[in-house]
Amino acid sequence: MDRITIIGLGLIGGSLGMALKAAKLKNVEIVGVDNSWDTVNAAKRRGAVDIVERDIGKAVRDAQMVVVATPILAFRQVFEAISPYLTEGAVVTDVGSTKSQVMQWAQELLPAGTNFVGGHPMAGKETAGIESAAATLFQGTTYCVLPSATATKSAVELVSGLATTVGAEPYFIDIEEHDMLVGGISHLPLVLAAALVSATSASPSWDEMAKLASSGFRDTSRLASSDFELVKGISSTNQAGLVHWIDAYLTVLLDFKKALVEDPERFLVSVEKAREARDRWLSGAYKRLGPQTEIPTAGEQMAELFMGSRLANAMKDQGERLKELEKGPRKEG
Amino acid sequence: MDRITIIGLGLIGGSLGMALKAAKLKNVEIVGVDNSWDTVNAAKRRGAVDIVERDIGKAVRDAQMVVVATPILAFRQVFEAISPYLTEGAVVTDVGSTKSQVMQWAQELLPAGTNFVGGHPMAGKETAGIESAAATLFQGTTYCVLPSATATKSAVELVSGLATTVGAEPYFIDIEEHDMLVGGISHLPLVLAAALVSATSASPSWDEMAKLASSGFRDTSRLASSDFELVKGISSTNQAGLVHWIDAYLTVLLDFKKALVEDPERFLVSVEKAREARDRWLSGAYKRLGPQTEIPTAGEQMAELFMGSRLANAMKDQGERLKELEKGPRKEG
Repeated sequence: MDRITIIGLGLIGGSLGMALKAAKLKNVEIVGVDNSWDTVNAAKRRGAVDIVERDIGKAVRDAQMVVVATPILAFRQVFEAISPYLTEGAVVTDVGSTKSQVMQWAQELLPAGTNFVGGHPMAGKETAGIESAAATLFQGTTYCVLPSATATKSAVELVSGLATTVGAEPYFIDIEEHDMLVGGISHLPLVLAAALVSATSASPSWDEMAKLASSGFRDTSRLASSDFELVKGISSTNQAGLVHWIDAYLTVLLDFKKALVEDPERFLVSVEKAREARDRWLSGAYKRLGPQTEIPTAGEQMAELFMGSRLANAMKDQGERLKELEKGPRKEG
Repeated sequence: MDRITIIGLGLIGGSLGMALKAAKLKNVEIVGVDNSWDTVNAAKRRGAVDIVERDIGKAVRDAQMVVVATPILAFRQVFEAISPYLTEGAVVTDVGSTKSQVMQWAQELLPAGTNFVGGHPMAGKETAGIESAAATLFQGTTYCVLPSATATKSAVELVSGLATTVGAEPYFIDIEEHDMLVGGISHLPLVLAAALVSATSASPSWDEMAKLASSGFRDTSRLASSDFELVKGISSTNQAGLVHWIDAYLTVLLDFKKALVEDPERFLVSVEKAREARDRWLSGAYKRLGPQTEIPTAGEQMAELFMGSRLANAMKDQGERLKELEKGPRKEG
């Protein structure tokens, strides 16, 4: 029996467990650990794990793969706690929203020879916690895979296999590039949403405005309800990326305002261009650009060499089932 | 048989027709007119109207209530076209997103004695057109009612009754105040969404970013896909309101950036405050502030005096059905 241990059973950790369980991997058991017993019990009840552990050392001792899914600011502590117990050759991955800082912590704190491969599933909800978790959370989404300098090719393939198994498309990307790009499409929207609520709710007329606010306000401001730990993690580990994008945004918004006042026709052209760009994005045009070819994703033979692994085989067996799942209904976007 | 004529059978006009038909008003027929035959046919097929008319004069000639639901920039032309044909005492209302300009046009162009009462249902979708229309679009939403200086009390109550009949809560509000408030919770979000898409899609890395963008980006940018006519109407009839709110927003965003760089703790406090404000809004706390009392909404006797009206009775009969409908499932927020 092989073991995948998930540390932190919130929205992402819980959903990964549920998706892995739904994949019915052969001879693989999912071990879950969390510092809240309420969460652990809920994870068990929701079928996100096979076994729960209170002791983090016990939880990782026999694991071939360890997924760190706590808030990012707890990673340092988790890496320190698991280091003495990791099996030789074990693959460690994470689901954090930023990567430069995480890679540094992994290099500093995990034992030499640990196969660390960063991961970032591009999926989420503004409601945190195991109760919001869902096996389908990753269906049709992009899953960033960021190997450390010392990770073996088979370790990379195992994390890539994890992404595929939960219904996502693995996407290999440079660490610095990752943080800059997610700064624009994930962290900037969060700050914009919070600023929208801040600007409107500070108005003396907010009580009346709140009565009028409808679905447009609700969706544009949705990310303002994001989990506090997530916001804290992002703002302290991707400050530079965030500032870069706030600056880019300020430039655009100032220009929109200038156009609105001085040349309304130009304002309308800008808005129309944005509409076209979003519609093209919504159409899935960019997803259809096809999988990357520079990093092979199908070298199961390598995964087999690595830890003689039944886990690799289980992931491979899962391929057909996944294709069926992927034909199923997908969420918009 | 009384007549309610809807001019313009797009998302809002079509949904109003469907909601009125769902209310099964006694002895009331819904007449629809639109300058596109495709739209007219679709409205008929979708059950949004009883009778379709190509000729706008014929359509309004025997109507007790006329609802103008074309793009706002066509209002001037519509008011001119219907003026010679309006029945004396007919109530004219609209569904435009801004009101100062509309009230001026109504005063200039509609015959003296016309009961103009502005309306603005706070409901919508980013997808325009009759195909997106739904009888439930207005359920649980706020419907702004803005009487002109010359509208009779019974005319105000009839438009208020229209709002109630389609499942919304009528809300009386000053014209200038309306335009300023919707500038913040409706028009500003639209501009912010367009600016987000503009800022990100202008990046040389957009092709990669688009692959990573997920539900957070989708929702924050949703309003960037708004109907072009809507954007055009808003930006040309509420420029001052929009500029005011863009300025307020720029101030907040600049402050967020400053805090992020100089005092991250303060940044987090601001974001947390925004989350609390949004959660309070989502909880429905502001809707529960209760109905306004300064303008009576239950004076059916007045509506009856006005045009001896079966239409008023039909609206009144509808009260019980509505209460049942309102107990049904509501959309979030």
